[in-house]
Amino acid sequence: MPGFYADKQAAAPVRPEVLEAMLPFFSQEFGNPQSLHSVGQKAARALSKAREQLARLINCRPEEIVFVASGSEANNLALKGLALANQARGQRVIVSAIEHISVLRATRFLEKLGFRITQVPVDGSGLVSPEKVAEALTPDTVLVSVMMANNEVGTIEPVTEIARLCQSRGIIFHSDAVAAVGNIPVDVSALGVDALSLAADQFGGPKGAGALFLKKGTKITPLIDGGLQENNRRAGTENVPAIVGLGQAAELAAREMAEKSARLSRLRDRLIAGVLGSLDEVILTGHPVNRLPHHASFCVKFVEGEAMLLGLDLKDIQVASGSACTSRSLRTSHVLTAMGIDPAVAQGSLVLTLFDGTSDDQLDYFLENFPPVVRRLRELSPLYTKYRQEKKDVHG
Amino acid sequence: MPGFYADKQAAAPVRPEVLEAMLPFFSQEFGNPQSLHSVGQKAARALSKAREQLARLINCRPEEIVFVASGSEANNLALKGLALANQARGQRVIVSAIEHISVLRATRFLEKLGFRITQVPVDGSGLVSPEKVAEALTPDTVLVSVMMANNEVGTIEPVTEIARLCQSRGIIFHSDAVAAVGNIPVDVSALGVDALSLAADQFGGPKGAGALFLKKGTKITPLIDGGLQENNRRAGTENVPAIVGLGQAAELAAREMAEKSARLSRLRDRLIAGVLGSLDEVILTGHPVNRLPHHASFCVKFVEGEAMLLGLDLKDIQVASGSACTSRSLRTSHVLTAMGIDPAVAQGSLVLTLFDGTSDDQLDYFLENFPPVVRRLRELSPLYTKYRQEKKDVHG
Repeated sequence: MPGFYADKQAAAPVRPEVLEAMLPFFSQEFGNPQSLHSVGQKAARALSKAREQLARLINCRPEEIVFVASGSEANNLALKGLALANQARGQRVIVSAIEHISVLRATRFLEKLGFRITQVPVDGSGLVSPEKVAEALTPDTVLVSVMMANNEVGTIEPVTEIARLCQSRGIIFHSDAVAAVGNIPVDVSALGVDALSLAADQFGGPKGAGALFLKKGTKITPLIDGGLQENNRRAGTENVPAIVGLGQAAELAAREMAEKSARLSRLRDRLIAGVLGSLDEVILTGHPVNRLPHHASFCVKFVEGEAMLLGLDLKDIQVASGSACTSRSLRTSHVLTAMGIDPAVAQGSLVLTLFDGTSDDQLDYFLENFPPVVRRLRELSPLYTKYRQEKKDVHG
Repeated sequence: MPGFYADKQAAAPVRPEVLEAMLPFFSQEFGNPQSLHSVGQKAARALSKAREQLARLINCRPEEIVFVASGSEANNLALKGLALANQARGQRVIVSAIEHISVLRATRFLEKLGFRITQVPVDGSGLVSPEKVAEALTPDTVLVSVMMANNEVGTIEPVTEIARLCQSRGIIFHSDAVAAVGNIPVDVSALGVDALSLAADQFGGPKGAGALFLKKGTKITPLIDGGLQENNRRAGTENVPAIVGLGQAAELAAREMAEKSARLSRLRDRLIAGVLGSLDEVILTGHPVNRLPHHASFCVKFVEGEAMLLGLDLKDIQVASGSACTSRSLRTSHVLTAMGIDPAVAQGSLVLTLFDGTSDDQLDYFLENFPPVVRRLRELSPLYTKYRQEKKDVHG
């Protein structure tokens, strides 16, 4: 393992127990679950087991789960599929301004087909207010989508309230819970959502496996048309090993969540205090309390996120500067912008996400190496020199 | 291994060399290729290598490959994505009547958006005639899609001629080569196609990995919108282990194809001769010569395909009765119907697909056990009794 790998949200090792569960399905139990013969039926049973394991984690019926290949696919299936299948109810779709790019870009696709999109703003901590959602609702609203927890700033959203609001008006409600499921309790029945996205690689499972929870009776247009897989909601040969891994990871997450959440949130709080205490001109982004237990995010003023990321990487420390999905675009984060953070400040975005492997020793290592990296970068910044000069003029 | 597993097209074991190549990417090299740090960049390099390996197999540039999760996804991306992105040229889409269900259902989706669909008929051997395609072309045709080889009857289509035809008229041409790539030579440059679908599990690779070849400069609307992965053509965290497996399987296929094809076509011919020689009232479906080297398909009159499949399974023989993707629908195959085969006869569809593991001994075992299974089923068939009686009355 690296010195301090704190980019779990971008990727994390598959848990050994998960990989062990997956392995037989590459070579020995290699069947296609759609085949009627015994080799196929063994694979079909493995698929059923995974469906039950995941259903227990999120408290739904197994048949309410549609397996897909990623969180982005789940979000696209939800946004496009629910809007298209139910457009007789209206062509307005409402999302928050800080949704994942896969949700926001899916709404752009819908816009081209004649749908009208409303983006609900957030406050400075990244919270979507249920009142603002209520104000945005129109008689032609068919779908509302608000994420369970934001991937860039860790804020946990008041999804239960928003779901209740939509339910009372007969509007379909979807939540992108990719950053949340497996990390914090997500009970789809208690939440009252109609659809919910998740991805295995966010909780110790493999890449290539995700799911959309779809409440019984909710009409959806498939994204991938074809065979009868996933009860006609997602065609294509099922990726049995990856789905088995998703199921196993879900079972482990259900069992260990309370303990792990306590451990990680303690480390996270140490991390936040350490970072804020070691440097001036650093702000915590996202909600100070209602945030993911493994998630710490900051804006470090007078540095570029990418330079910071690469400087830390030389010390064998891996972090993110925003979302991995958009990291190469080098644009200012739409999430930080929506939260009212100045674009110049948003450039210094730093996102740390912890996982099973994170230890106090690693954290010590990070807290020791982080300030010098930032200081060196700031020394190169004309803006920081100017700021220091002004501060001296005032105070000194 | 089972007594005789002859359902490679539905599923086959991942080759040991392929699994070995994949394994490090679950736990050690677990990075997200989009991450800018060293852990991510190692994964990005693995992705590049796989892209080059596949590009060599089909003779294209690495950047012309869009990795997806299945052949069905590749087909949906091609049909929907090419039609939507290029609809200014026209809203007519032409496909053959024997395309895979993922292509046919994708055209139904397009129909709902205002596109007009033409299905070109096939002859009794499942061949699409380039002349029939030429006749179907209209000034508003934007896209033609004809498969490289049919999965249910093994017939290899005259794709080069159809591609040339489309090219001369400036019409985009896509070919579903899922059953073909890795089994027969597929050179996208020589073929002159604009887009081509393939899936790793058809040539010793894992489930969960496929690709769409997309000729440089061809405009496409993504199916999955979101992050910048796959050069903005397919969002979602890349399934690195599966893609590495696809690359490795492509490299092996390129190296071994000639030898393997010779070996399998010899076994296939033995199988066909054995089946036709051992029972009356069995017809070979698909083209007698222009067919996939690993593919043998029949209609066994006076039996139900499912009963035959389950009867053989009791003898540890696994076969298919049509396509795995639609096997549970128990409908008459649209492929056999399009070829003019009587629905009653089409019920007895039997599809055998051979793979690396198939041996002459296994074939002997099958040829010994197959006729008694069919005879027992026919004894239960009132239609067969009637047929036998009539035959006796005529011949004495």
